[in-house]
Amino acid sequence: MKEITILGSTGSIGTQALEVIATNPDTLHVRVLAARHNAELMAQQIRRFQPDFAVLTDKEAAHKLQQQLGTACDILSGEEGLIAAATYGPVDTVLGAIVGYAGLQPVLAAIQAGKDIALANKETLVAAGHLIMEAATDKGVHILPVDSEHSAIFQSLRGGSHSEVSKLILTASGGPFRGYTKEQLRHVTREQCLKHPNWNMGPKVTIDSATLANKGLEVMEAHWLFDMPYEQIEVVIHPQSIVHSLVAFCDGAVIAQLGLPDMRLPIQYALSWPQRYHCSFGQLDLVQARALTFEAPDTEAFPALKLAIDCGKAGGTYPCAFNAGNEACVQAFLQGIIGYSDIPVLLARIIEEHQSISSPSLDEIMTTDRDVRKRASQLWKAL
Amino acid sequence: MKEITILGSTGSIGTQALEVIATNPDTLHVRVLAARHNAELMAQQIRRFQPDFAVLTDKEAAHKLQQQLGTACDILSGEEGLIAAATYGPVDTVLGAIVGYAGLQPVLAAIQAGKDIALANKETLVAAGHLIMEAATDKGVHILPVDSEHSAIFQSLRGGSHSEVSKLILTASGGPFRGYTKEQLRHVTREQCLKHPNWNMGPKVTIDSATLANKGLEVMEAHWLFDMPYEQIEVVIHPQSIVHSLVAFCDGAVIAQLGLPDMRLPIQYALSWPQRYHCSFGQLDLVQARALTFEAPDTEAFPALKLAIDCGKAGGTYPCAFNAGNEACVQAFLQGIIGYSDIPVLLARIIEEHQSISSPSLDEIMTTDRDVRKRASQLWKAL
Repeated sequence: MKEITILGSTGSIGTQALEVIATNPDTLHVRVLAARHNAELMAQQIRRFQPDFAVLTDKEAAHKLQQQLGTACDILSGEEGLIAAATYGPVDTVLGAIVGYAGLQPVLAAIQAGKDIALANKETLVAAGHLIMEAATDKGVHILPVDSEHSAIFQSLRGGSHSEVSKLILTASGGPFRGYTKEQLRHVTREQCLKHPNWNMGPKVTIDSATLANKGLEVMEAHWLFDMPYEQIEVVIHPQSIVHSLVAFCDGAVIAQLGLPDMRLPIQYALSWPQRYHCSFGQLDLVQARALTFEAPDTEAFPALKLAIDCGKAGGTYPCAFNAGNEACVQAFLQGIIGYSDIPVLLARIIEEHQSISSPSLDEIMTTDRDVRKRASQLWKAL
Repeated sequence: MKEITILGSTGSIGTQALEVIATNPDTLHVRVLAARHNAELMAQQIRRFQPDFAVLTDKEAAHKLQQQLGTACDILSGEEGLIAAATYGPVDTVLGAIVGYAGLQPVLAAIQAGKDIALANKETLVAAGHLIMEAATDKGVHILPVDSEHSAIFQSLRGGSHSEVSKLILTASGGPFRGYTKEQLRHVTREQCLKHPNWNMGPKVTIDSATLANKGLEVMEAHWLFDMPYEQIEVVIHPQSIVHSLVAFCDGAVIAQLGLPDMRLPIQYALSWPQRYHCSFGQLDLVQARALTFEAPDTEAFPALKLAIDCGKAGGTYPCAFNAGNEACVQAFLQGIIGYSDIPVLLARIIEEHQSISSPSLDEIMTTDRDVRKRASQLWKAL
């Protein structure tokens, strides 16, 4: 039985993870649930999964939920609550599904406590990949990717040794605006951005998919997860989201993982690894899929992709700055403060101004994150 | 250094294997070459690769070549020569690339001598899969597939354990007549049959690809190689021959091997396994490939596929009978004795008449093979 903490249980990944766990009651077991402030859904999840304790980081929400539940379940709160959830003794694996930079510290605490990490939070690796991977190596814990692309690469890497890999090939759906010109992109709305053609995901990653910033973050994530130079990571647009990613080996063989675009499949693999569990979420039918197509990404219409990769290559605090700037811009866009086309413009400006620190400490990363967010809000006020 | 015997060195697979060996001089080394009667090409191969000895099964050709070469290289002949090549002490791996049923006995001898087998000869497994795999298990030797489809499955199977496999999916180009109706197929010529759209192969397998008998033989081959029930083996038409085959696992993940349609790649993998060697034969470019399409096979227009699978399921000497009948019919077709559309008709007749023996011995398989070939020639005389 694998004992699991879910950080971010009320979000898109968290709720799908609970579906996976519910279909594998003999092998997977929830011990702790943690979320930000959705008390209503958390109450339902507690009733169904009966964790040892639960966490809402929002103190007011936590207090209200504790009153509602009485002695049925302890509700912790705040950052301390998250850390308690991430480091809880009986737990084997922590699913890191808190969106954005906020997931960094609890994931790092979980690694230091020797927990395997099922990592859905790519921003963690983007901002602090060197710290995370070093800690994981020190503690001998496994970082198991939940992103469908990284799960596909992780699975495809079984086809050879690390030194035999010539290239990681990340696929990207291209998002809702694939084929749009720069001019057409000026007029897209928030509603259009939030309609992803293939995947059912949370709002942050859905917007990131529409700007291709997401794929840039994923390139950085792949760099750290698989210890691969940026020169050996490629992005190819694959609108059907069936080939989840590929690995090219030195002998000309390319190994790929395919499947339905359903996040429950990579979530399950991260939790079942090194085994595979039987799945009732549907099987790919190639004849029904009919055609799988591939094209090069349009980095002119979607400049955030190239900018992210450049930040990755530059290293230091550039990736953290890109991530913080992107999170701030996406939030502002979701709030209707800035437009879609402003996102890459502001991002480019932020990166241009950024003074990078090499091999940053956690403190320096936190300072960078805070400063960049502040600067972003100044920038859009000046728009 | 891997020491190698090539059985069938002057054929399509043999010559490509020699190219692979020539590009990997630090790891692969030819010790013995064997072929049927092409003395001229064999003389060239001997000069270039300097084997310990060589074999031409045709005694007259062997005698002439020995006279020509003098003491430079011993030339053995006949079935004894083949067996000597297959069992030669210093050799680690025997590449079984003799086309058709003739490859069976030397491959079996090589296994009994404890050699790993790089198997290009699918007819061997079709006719005597139970004997071959039993001997391989007994002797602890590896059977490494050379067929691109089986190599792809072999590579994709690294993605999980045997019990986690839900399905093997063999791809088929569909051959030169994909989309033809039964009526259109009545008028196809030998020249059309010999033009395969994607692969550069010998005449026997090229004709088999045009009837889809080849894919039927491959289903039987996969059944034995991977210990998989026929119910868990599927065929899907994939005209671009880029996805070489796939394995579906129980958790919904499908692992595939892709690559250029170049036989040197699976040949190299069979010889390099468990490693991968660097390859200079070209790399797949997905953006250039553009679209990979899939469709269901048309078993009405190409009845040999279903007939082969039915023979596989029925077991006993049915697969041997199918193979012998098919080899005889293809030979007759190549000689202009029968037409393309006669092949499946005659095959169906042969199988209908066949009295199967269960768990046949090698003798019973040899008798079946001889009897069926005789019967086939009677049948086409009566056409």
